[in-house]
Amino acid sequence: MIGSHQPESGGQPAPAPQHVYLLSNLAGARSATGSDEGLRRELGGKGSSLAEMTELGLPVPPGFVITAGTCRAFLAGDGTLPAGVWDEVETALRKVQRETGRRFGDSGSPLLLSCRSGSRFSMPGMMDTVLNLGMTDEVAERLAQDSGDERFAFDAFRRLVQMFGRVVLGVPEEPFAGLLAERRAARGIGNDAELPAADLRELTDAFRTLVHEHTGRPFPDDPRVQLRLAIEAVFRSWNGKRAHDYRVATGIPHDLGTAVTIVTMVFGNLGKDSGTGVMTTRNVTTGENEFEGDFLANAQGEDVVSGTRATLPIAELRARMPEIWDELRRHGQQLEQHYGDVQDIEFTVEQGRLWILQTRAAKRTAQAAIRIAVDLAWERRITRQQALLRIRPDQVDYFLHPQFDAEGRAAASRDGKLLATGLNVSPGAAVGQAVFDADTAEQWRKDGKKVVLVRAETRPDDVHGFLAAAGILTSHGGRTSHAALVARQFGRPAVVGALSLEIDAAARTLRAPNGALIREGEFLSLDGGTGEVFAGELPSVVPDIDDDHLRQLLAWADAERKVGVRANADVPHDAARARAFGAEGIGLCRTEHMFFAPDRLPIVQQALLAKDATERARHLAALLPLQREDFVGLFRAMDGLPVTIRLIDPPLHEFLPDHEEIREQNPMLGLRGVRLAIHMPDLVRMQFRAILEAACLCRKSKVVALPRLMIPLTATSAELRIERAVLDQIAAEVMAEQGCEIPYAFGTMIEVPRAALVAERLAEYAEFFSFGTNDLTQTTYGISRDDAETSFLTEYLQAGVMVWNPFATLDRDGVGELMKMALARGRRSRPDLECGICGEHGGDPASIAFCAEIGLDYVSCSPYRVPVARLAAAHAALR
Amino acid sequence: MIGSHQPESGGQPAPAPQHVYLLSNLAGARSATGSDEGLRRELGGKGSSLAEMTELGLPVPPGFVITAGTCRAFLAGDGTLPAGVWDEVETALRKVQRETGRRFGDSGSPLLLSCRSGSRFSMPGMMDTVLNLGMTDEVAERLAQDSGDERFAFDAFRRLVQMFGRVVLGVPEEPFAGLLAERRAARGIGNDAELPAADLRELTDAFRTLVHEHTGRPFPDDPRVQLRLAIEAVFRSWNGKRAHDYRVATGIPHDLGTAVTIVTMVFGNLGKDSGTGVMTTRNVTTGENEFEGDFLANAQGEDVVSGTRATLPIAELRARMPEIWDELRRHGQQLEQHYGDVQDIEFTVEQGRLWILQTRAAKRTAQAAIRIAVDLAWERRITRQQALLRIRPDQVDYFLHPQFDAEGRAAASRDGKLLATGLNVSPGAAVGQAVFDADTAEQWRKDGKKVVLVRAETRPDDVHGFLAAAGILTSHGGRTSHAALVARQFGRPAVVGALSLEIDAAARTLRAPNGALIREGEFLSLDGGTGEVFAGELPSVVPDIDDDHLRQLLAWADAERKVGVRANADVPHDAARARAFGAEGIGLCRTEHMFFAPDRLPIVQQALLAKDATERARHLAALLPLQREDFVGLFRAMDGLPVTIRLIDPPLHEFLPDHEEIREQNPMLGLRGVRLAIHMPDLVRMQFRAILEAACLCRKSKVVALPRLMIPLTATSAELRIERAVLDQIAAEVMAEQGCEIPYAFGTMIEVPRAALVAERLAEYAEFFSFGTNDLTQTTYGISRDDAETSFLTEYLQAGVMVWNPFATLDRDGVGELMKMALARGRRSRPDLECGICGEHGGDPASIAFCAEIGLDYVSCSPYRVPVARLAAAHAALR
Repeated sequence: MIGSHQPESGGQPAPAPQHVYLLSNLAGARSATGSDEGLRRELGGKGSSLAEMTELGLPVPPGFVITAGTCRAFLAGDGTLPAGVWDEVETALRKVQRETGRRFGDSGSPLLLSCRSGSRFSMPGMMDTVLNLGMTDEVAERLAQDSGDERFAFDAFRRLVQMFGRVVLGVPEEPFAGLLAERRAARGIGNDAELPAADLRELTDAFRTLVHEHTGRPFPDDPRVQLRLAIEAVFRSWNGKRAHDYRVATGIPHDLGTAVTIVTMVFGNLGKDSGTGVMTTRNVTTGENEFEGDFLANAQGEDVVSGTRATLPIAELRARMPEIWDELRRHGQQLEQHYGDVQDIEFTVEQGRLWILQTRAAKRTAQAAIRIAVDLAWERRITRQQALLRIRPDQVDYFLHPQFDAEGRAAASRDGKLLATGLNVSPGAAVGQAVFDADTAEQWRKDGKKVVLVRAETRPDDVHGFLAAAGILTSHGGRTSHAALVARQFGRPAVVGALSLEIDAAARTLRAPNGALIREGEFLSLDGGTGEVFAGELPSVVPDIDDDHLRQLLAWADAERKVGVRANADVPHDAARARAFGAEGIGLCRTEHMFFAPDRLPIVQQALLAKDATERARHLAALLPLQREDFVGLFRAMDGLPVTIRLIDPPLHEFLPDHEEIREQNPMLGLRGVRLAIHMPDLVRMQFRAILEAACLCRKSKVVALPRLMIPLTATSAELRIERAVLDQIAAEVMAEQGCEIPYAFGTMIEVPRAALVAERLAEYAEFFSFGTNDLTQTTYGISRDDAETSFLTEYLQAGVMVWNPFATLDRDGVGELMKMALARGRRSRPDLECGICGEHGGDPASIAFCAEIGLDYVSCSPYRVPVARLAAAHAALR
Repeated sequence: MIGSHQPESGGQPAPAPQHVYLLSNLAGARSATGSDEGLRRELGGKGSSLAEMTELGLPVPPGFVITAGTCRAFLAGDGTLPAGVWDEVETALRKVQRETGRRFGDSGSPLLLSCRSGSRFSMPGMMDTVLNLGMTDEVAERLAQDSGDERFAFDAFRRLVQMFGRVVLGVPEEPFAGLLAERRAARGIGNDAELPAADLRELTDAFRTLVHEHTGRPFPDDPRVQLRLAIEAVFRSWNGKRAHDYRVATGIPHDLGTAVTIVTMVFGNLGKDSGTGVMTTRNVTTGENEFEGDFLANAQGEDVVSGTRATLPIAELRARMPEIWDELRRHGQQLEQHYGDVQDIEFTVEQGRLWILQTRAAKRTAQAAIRIAVDLAWERRITRQQALLRIRPDQVDYFLHPQFDAEGRAAASRDGKLLATGLNVSPGAAVGQAVFDADTAEQWRKDGKKVVLVRAETRPDDVHGFLAAAGILTSHGGRTSHAALVARQFGRPAVVGALSLEIDAAARTLRAPNGALIREGEFLSLDGGTGEVFAGELPSVVPDIDDDHLRQLLAWADAERKVGVRANADVPHDAARARAFGAEGIGLCRTEHMFFAPDRLPIVQQALLAKDATERARHLAALLPLQREDFVGLFRAMDGLPVTIRLIDPPLHEFLPDHEEIREQNPMLGLRGVRLAIHMPDLVRMQFRAILEAACLCRKSKVVALPRLMIPLTATSAELRIERAVLDQIAAEVMAEQGCEIPYAFGTMIEVPRAALVAERLAEYAEFFSFGTNDLTQTTYGISRDDAETSFLTEYLQAGVMVWNPFATLDRDGVGELMKMALARGRRSRPDLECGICGEHGGDPASIAFCAEIGLDYVSCSPYRVPVARLAAAHAALR
């Protein structure tokens, strides 16, 4: 070959790409397409997995694949098969005939073929399929004879005519269904399967007449014409409306095209030594290592799916066909081994011979997913890292909340109990009696009732109602509304922004769009994972979590992740739970939540309304020991771990709802955060003192308190300079009084854009930054999170103006840019500046990935999100 | 000198710095301090100007200066003069004695000295002065004898004791004043000047006794001790509380120290051939080129200042002392020539001999400043560039508004007519009858009355009241509140946020903190330049502007500036005014202002509330011709210049104040701007169409319309993509219908941080950016401009947490960073991207300087600010 033309890259010349590959020619297809990825793109998921199984020596019916590239050329051309394709099909067909010993269109030993779509990405049911190609009158007679089952042969024939007519020739389904219905009526039977062979013969003819009348042409009795037209129809179905819409919805590119897989038909309905079934190599509900599936003797695949006959558990196969069972078991294990994951396998037994028709990774419950991944790693079938990547973070979340039973939910929907669907802001199922205010919620709870708190929207002084309620439902508010935030915080299932519900707090009723009226005391069921609200009591189950497996998974996650995970917790009980869930400290304690407790709010209000400094000092002095106790509790729960405490933050009117005069036009941008600290310095001085006194008290009882004091809403370095001076002075005072040294840290929230821009100056005073991305998103976009999610933001998401909600998942281009800037600038003046995030994004996996990418030290999220964050952080490290 | 030590920079060795420099040794001082700047720093403003005048050959009393460096060493040390200082003082004193032929402390020919502070920056009255040092009993007797005026001698002596006692020894002023008062009472006279010599002798003794009693030591009768202690006292006064507070307030560094200037005393009260006066080399009220000033024969400087004797106009000097007049005139011209600016000169004539005691640049009115600067440039005494830099932009602004007469204002203040001082948001004087709502304002105006509109705060539907009113007064709202913005827009004087006023719109009264009650119809006078509000009618004058001078100055400015100046104008009348003021186009037309006109608001409301698209279309069709007419008017007024039109921006509730359900919690961050355009597309389509139809109409009548359509509140590129597609489609339609081509441009506001961050993507759709820095400041800081200025922002400014109001002057570190980023990123994808600013900062000189610095193409401001902006832009180019 020296001197002949060689590709510059050297090595073997790549084989010229073909249009058609035999399933038994995986090596050829792989080398032509260059990679596994290329293989799947050109042969489709179905075709490439059949070819792989063939190579593994599994009993796959012989067949071949026409590539997606051929489809692209077909669709780009004049609607006929590109030159050379049909020749390759004929060649492949000859080889299949040799492999099977049958001949296509030959009534001596007839070969029937299926023709299926198959693209790189699964698009279930979106494109077309034609079965039983190759059937003619002669073939049908021969099949009837060979099988001794005339009914089987003409049922297959009439199915071909019906399917081909509809898919390839565009005849509507209704007249076919009408003819079938007439026959059933004439026979007085309810099921096509009961039609006798004679009827099926007549129906075959009637269907062909129908096709002729509808298309003006006779049904093609040339098997090659059938095959060619079927191939073209499947290619065309790539651009069908269903397929196009599905690709738009799922983000699959439109220019891939579909492969066509053409495979020898095998039949499970050829007698007692035939059958068909589906099985998974492990239990996909529990994750246990046992085969699971269904089997029907003397049946076709659609009989299993349609449910017209009761299926048998797969274990029955062992008794009925022990050799088949053994073979299937062997093949299943081989496939699981080969793919490193649990397989979902379709098979058919044709007259005592097993055929594997499809294999793919099995869908599974969250519980099974975790168990299987960990088991596979324990069995060294996959690595720990692979096991981690197999679990989606939301699958971990699932285990932390009770869930509605699927059947109960379906029944309730059927019965019209579904009242509305709102925003699914805090997952889990909740059942309880409707109450319309927080006090009632608390009282009823004390009386031993389970309640669901129903409000148009919630406020900070509803918090005792959250604690008392099994779930929260609001008609207003968005994904980061007060109700949503607090519900997630306390792990209470919640549905918010269910705009179609009319809540009348005065009348104590809730009215649904379907007219249903729920009065106080009547039961509601809500699913915070789906946003559904039901009337009545739905049965719920706590997922049966295998603790060992989950714990193992999270321990592996901890070993991989580079980002710390802390929790947002305001009270000792939350802090303890967070620690149990694996939190490595508190990243955000919102001190104002302490102020809303019923024993404190009146004192807080008196302090805020005090006529003069002396009166204010008196009220603050009364608050001091209460606050100190709060902090002692937190420090104890987090003994030895950092506790980040944010000073009082919200606008005053949240504490003084009845004082209209202090209400601002845009309270989010008003007198709150550090501005409040500077405006009313005594309040913050009291907080500083309470924190440091608490730390000293802890120290005396050998509890290691690591307080980190954090200033909210900082926009200028002067604000930090002032507050740091106040803190350092009070700290010196308290430590002198108490005779102990407390290692405290001073830091700031970064929650307005200016803070990120002047981070270099802020870091002169701040030892740590914590990104408050709820507010930062709000100010970066100029979108109020109080209002937007129930107004234009929803519209934006529906219309695709925004692809995702920036309050749920961090906006990398805008907010993320500011975060990167703040990190770089802050660390310029303080290289060991510690940076974390404590907005709601801290519990969102995609956002955690970004945080890890830009080099945050930790994320902080609500206690119930801590396990989710641990896994998401491991994913970030592994990707 | 070869081989000896040389400074590495080569050249002459710098002389060793001395502590003390003779006024006659300017060359020595200059070479020791290295520069004019160093000279002023070390010798102070007073000392260096006296030395300069000495060098010019002017008759300055001999003296010397102790440097600011000496003061710094003194203050850093143990409170005594550093080693060597006193020796240098003695040396200098000997030279002064030689120059004067008098001897310090010698009763034969006594020398008296003044001892004054003098730092780099003028700190008038903030530090101490001691006069008449060197007085003893013997010296006093000798002076009495020499002058033939015993009263003069002992008045000087008692003043020394009193001043020295207070300043140097810390004796309180009260007992001195008490003794003087006793004497006056005993004599039955009202004025110290009438006390006879005998009384002054006795008072000198009594004062010395007082000093002895208070300090435990006798008053020093050694002149050298007097001098030394006085020097130390002046040094110490640098760190006095008054001086320290003044430096904090004015931003003067604390580590400069003060020089001490010690000069021979000369006396204007030694007979008829003596006298004293102050004069300026031009008229500082009108700017005319004529001497102006006051003169008193036989008097000291303090007699001129105290007003106890009526001064004579300076022209009288010509008649009384013609030679002195000639000499003074010559010196004045010489000094004006030397400094290139009008001088304010203090002089004394002592027994027929003229002494110049001080010269400095004269303070002047805005009118004089402009005339003088232009005249000096015309006279080629300074360059045009220097002339431009002499005028502060606010001095230009002054000419565009009537002003209160200074005497009338002073009288009103004395009479308790000053009701309150609010924020000075729109300059000029306004007088009118108080009215408490816009409709009354309009009605009364029609009846021929002048009215002041008084509101707690204003709203868009008050705009007809603004047009009718001579001035606007509100008790709430900040510098960028609606009232402030619209008042500046219409050039109406306004005071807003006068929080101490209680406005009762129902009772139609206004109550001031002093108890005064103003009822509807009673007169108010308000000064939008100072923020003062007066009861009654103050006399006002329109400044007598010399149009030629101002026009010349602005023409020079236009030749220098690199930044374009456009105007924010919504109606043809404003546009025409802006053009007359020099605007080069419209940078912002707020279309919503058109919607508030009484003939339109009802249609707008019906369109917004329409039940369906058909009904909305009907109302919008009714608005279309009205809007089109608006735009035709604007295009005509701006024929050939760009007209930038912002699409509808405000939240819906501004149009529908009575619909509580559409009110948002944070409307600034809600459904407005482009969000409204996407939410309710028909409205914006109507606007697009009206603009383009108007441009076509203009084209047909040979008016060159250059519409630039601008999208507000953009945060994502998808928003621009959508709106640009809508615009391009409508433009194609309209141009096809009308058969004409309109060169339109599409652009966006940059008013939320995200827009700046993703500017590269925005510029793919936008041909121009306009920075809406009001909103951008709001979102960058997270500060609502509706609320902040009357709450914590004012507090922040007072407490120095912020040094300036970021809504008045651009924040370079935060907002400015975002602007720079937006420019760089936007121009990356579109190199010819045009960028301007249309926030209120566009009329603020410091902000204009920044805009020029970062490379904006133009600034846009309210019509009345256009001349100010032209000058400020020239300053930016010159600096």
